[in-house]
Amino acid sequence: MNTKNQREIINITNQVEAIVEKSKVSEGMVLVSAMHITASIFVNDEESGIKQDLLEWAEKIAPFNPNYNHHKTGESNGDAHLKSILFHHEVTIPITKGKLDFGPWQQVFYGEFDGQRKKRVIVKVLGE
Amino acid sequence: MNTKNQREIINITNQVEAIVEKSKVSEGMVLVSAMHITASIFVNDEESGIKQDLLEWAEKIAPFNPNYNHHKTGESNGDAHLKSILFHHEVTIPITKGKLDFGPWQQVFYGEFDGQRKKRVIVKVLGE
Amino acid sequence: MNTKNQREIINITNQVEAIVEKSKVSEGMVLVSAMHITASIFVNDEESGIKQDLLEWAEKIAPFNPNYNHHKTGESNGDAHLKSILFHHEVTIPITKGKLDFGPWQQVFYGEFDGQRKKRVIVKVLGE
Repeated sequence: MNTKNQREIINITNQVEAIVEKSKVSEGMVLVSAMHITASIFVNDEESGIKQDLLEWAEKIAPFNPNYNHHKTGESNGDAHLKSILFHHEVTIPITKGKLDFGPWQQVFYGEFDGQRKKRVIVKVLGE
Repeated sequence: MNTKNQREIINITNQVEAIVEKSKVSEGMVLVSAMHITASIFVNDEESGIKQDLLEWAEKIAPFNPNYNHHKTGESNGDAHLKSILFHHEVTIPITKGKLDFGPWQQVFYGEFDGQRKKRVIVKVLGE
Repeated sequence: MNTKNQREIINITNQVEAIVEKSKVSEGMVLVSAMHITASIFVNDEESGIKQDLLEWAEKIAPFNPNYNHHKTGESNGDAHLKSILFHHEVTIPITKGKLDFGPWQQVFYGEFDGQRKKRVIVKVLGE
């Protein structure tokens, strides 16, 4: 996955669903996990306003700040590490009859907090 | 499950335990996941003071505010979406010898942030 | 595990990896869960600056305060309960070819917010 912006929220529901279908697992769960310490995976609503609210809230709770201790290593993304903790980096989603067993509004998202490069998400299906 | 208040914390440990017992799974894990984007599932303490503290803290970190972008759709529950992210919407609990393998104080809760209507939680047991 | 300080972050990647190896599970997932309501398990970076930033951020978002409702029970660790929610108390990590399937910087940590005594983490491997 290529991320275009420094911070963005990308709906990955279709990709996860395709992997679950291909797995032929009918009853079980699927783990969706970011392979980065400055990103997150979470479940919420496909609505542009709330996605904007989530990014603004992340910035309020875990703001960019030049003075993080982490920056002594030469990095400048300390805030993205905190945002990754705030949103959590993985979700486990139930599978029923071969489908993601979501409520009517639930969708799964990749939240990028230090992007503009290639990123990876791992998807692992367990069940029968 | 019917939620009486706009915001409340409901102990669902007994219901989850009953489902695990009925499943006959002895070693494994159980996924407990809210089917709503304005609710949460979390593990903490059955103590009325801390439950009050958790609700007050949620309001402090993700306050009600008429000006969320999400509200341009006619909704008024933007804060509940943020609270759902803060508390996470699912937990996975270990099962050992057919029981939830909790520490002495751990209990599982449904956290409602936009209630007063019917709500659903999904429970999925995996193991043998 | 014995915790030396009131608040600290302990890298437990090697211990989790050893349990996964011993389980002989090649494809699946491992649940790593704190058995305490004042602790957390999370995935982030083995870098001393960011670990300090995480502890300082936890204190900013969920500060020690003598006035939590929980303290009417005689306890003084209300802040540690909130910090446990903020960081989440468990992670599920994918296993591929018998190894934790992490990105290059990912490590798993136990975050202690009310320590200086014996603490327990449960690790549960599922797969084949």
